[in-house]
Amino acid sequence: MRIVRFRWQGAVSWGIVEDSMVFSLDGDLYGEFKKGKELCRLGDVKLLAPAEPSIMVACGRNYMGTIGQLGVDIPQEPALFFKPATTVADPGADIVYPPVSRDLRYEAELCCVMKQEVKNVPEDKALDYVLGYTCGDDFTLMDLFEKDGRLTRAKGFDTSGALGPWLVTGLDPHHLGIKGRVNGETKQDGNTSQMMFPVERIISHISAFMTLRPGDVVFTGTPEGGHCPVKVGDMIEVEIEGIGILKNQVVA
Amino acid sequence: MRIVRFRWQGAVSWGIVEDSMVFSLDGDLYGEFKKGKELCRLGDVKLLAPAEPSIMVACGRNYMGTIGQLGVDIPQEPALFFKPATTVADPGADIVYPPVSRDLRYEAELCCVMKQEVKNVPEDKALDYVLGYTCGDDFTLMDLFEKDGRLTRAKGFDTSGALGPWLVTGLDPHHLGIKGRVNGETKQDGNTSQMMFPVERIISHISAFMTLRPGDVVFTGTPEGGHCPVKVGDMIEVEIEGIGILKNQVVA
Repeated sequence: MRIVRFRWQGAVSWGIVEDSMVFSLDGDLYGEFKKGKELCRLGDVKLLAPAEPSIMVACGRNYMGTIGQLGVDIPQEPALFFKPATTVADPGADIVYPPVSRDLRYEAELCCVMKQEVKNVPEDKALDYVLGYTCGDDFTLMDLFEKDGRLTRAKGFDTSGALGPWLVTGLDPHHLGIKGRVNGETKQDGNTSQMMFPVERIISHISAFMTLRPGDVVFTGTPEGGHCPVKVGDMIEVEIEGIGILKNQVVA
Repeated sequence: MRIVRFRWQGAVSWGIVEDSMVFSLDGDLYGEFKKGKELCRLGDVKLLAPAEPSIMVACGRNYMGTIGQLGVDIPQEPALFFKPATTVADPGADIVYPPVSRDLRYEAELCCVMKQEVKNVPEDKALDYVLGYTCGDDFTLMDLFEKDGRLTRAKGFDTSGALGPWLVTGLDPHHLGIKGRVNGETKQDGNTSQMMFPVERIISHISAFMTLRPGDVVFTGTPEGGHCPVKVGDMIEVEIEGIGILKNQVVA
C-alpha cells in the first residue's frame, strides 16, 4: 500500500494512493485504518514528507563500498547519529545550501518510519514496528564534519533530511535496488542487500538505549558512490525499487 | 520570575511561583502572559521538566577545567551534540542506569529554554530569544562514548537530560555559581563566568545552521569536577545560583 502525506485544498492530510488516485485514510495512521473515499488525482496534491518525526536516527558507514570510498573504520555495531525534525524536507522541496559550508554532499538511503513506540525490541520483532518505507536523502556538509570532528552541524542543518515521495507498506527491505542520481547521471547503483547491519539490527540497536516513537524515522546508510559534492541548481534523485523517486533541488 | 510546569489534580499546566504559592500562568508561555489566580502551595504539585523541547542542543568542552580534566582538545567553536526529547527527565525523576553501560556519569549544566523560533541570530541579540534558565544534568555513558567514538548513545539515552526545578526569567547567565553534588558531597563548584563560549555565542552558533523552536533547550557545558562515575542509589544534585536545586536519583 502507498501512503501519502499531502496538502490539498489548504489542508494537510494523510491518504492512500491507488492507480494515481488519492483516497482518504480513515482511522489512525499508527493503529487501524482503511481506505476511505476518493479525493482527487495524485497530480492535484502537493506531496509532503511522509513522516512527522520527533527525531530521526541515522546509521552511517553501513555499506562496505562507502566505507572503502571514505577510508573510515569498519564499525562493529551500527554507527548512529541524530537528525532533528527541523532537518525534514519534503519531496520536491528546495535544499538550501548552507552559507556556513562549501562542501555539500548527498546520500541516497532507505528510510523506515515507525508505527509504534519501541524500546528494547529484539531483531526478530523489530520490523513489526515499521509502518512503512520511503526514500531518504541524508545531505551532509563534509567540510564541517572534518572541521568539527562530529556530525552535529554536518548532518543537522535545516532541510538536510529529505523524505518521500510516499510510504510503502508490506515491503521486504532486504533486497531493494537503490540509486542516486545528480542531474540525471547515476552516481550510486546499489542494493539494500549490501547493508552491513540490516534494518532490523539497526532498529533493535537504537531501541536498546532510547525510545522511538510513532512517526520517528530511521535512516539506514548510503551505498557506494554517494558523497559526491553537489552545487546550487543540481537536481538530486533517490530511487528505491518498489518505492519510487525522491527529487530535490539544491538552491542558494 | 519563576515559571513551573507541574501536574496537579490530574492535569499538566504551566504556572508562576511566588512565595511558595503557585499561580496560574494566563496567556501564551511563548508570547504574552501574566500571573493569574492562586492555585495551591508549591509543595502540593508534582514538578515537571520546565520545557517541552522538540530538540535539545548541547555544548561540550565549554569550561577549560573540564577540558584539562578530560585531556581533550580545546574547541575553536562551540562543540555541539543533540539530545532528543526522549532524554528529558523531570526534577526528582529516577534516572535509569542503562544496562548497555557500566560507566554512567553526570554533568551539572546551565540550560536555557527558547521562547521564539530562532535562526541566524547574532550574538548581541541571542539572549532576547531566551524564555528562561534552569538547571540541567547531562548524564553520559562514558564507556559507550569511548567505544562508539561519538556521543549518540552516550548522551542520547532515555532520561539522560534532567531539567528543573523551574525556569527563572530575567537572569543574567554570565556570573552564576554552579555546583554538582553526589550524595551531598560537592564534586563541582564552578561559575558560568568560566564558560569559554558564553550562552549567546552558543545560541548564535546553533542558529547559524538550524532553527531552534519555542521550548527547545540549550545545554551550555559542565564545569570542572563533573564526569565522576555514579552508581545505582546515588542522589545527584545540580545547584545554580539564582535558580535552585535539581535532584535526581540513579536507579537500576
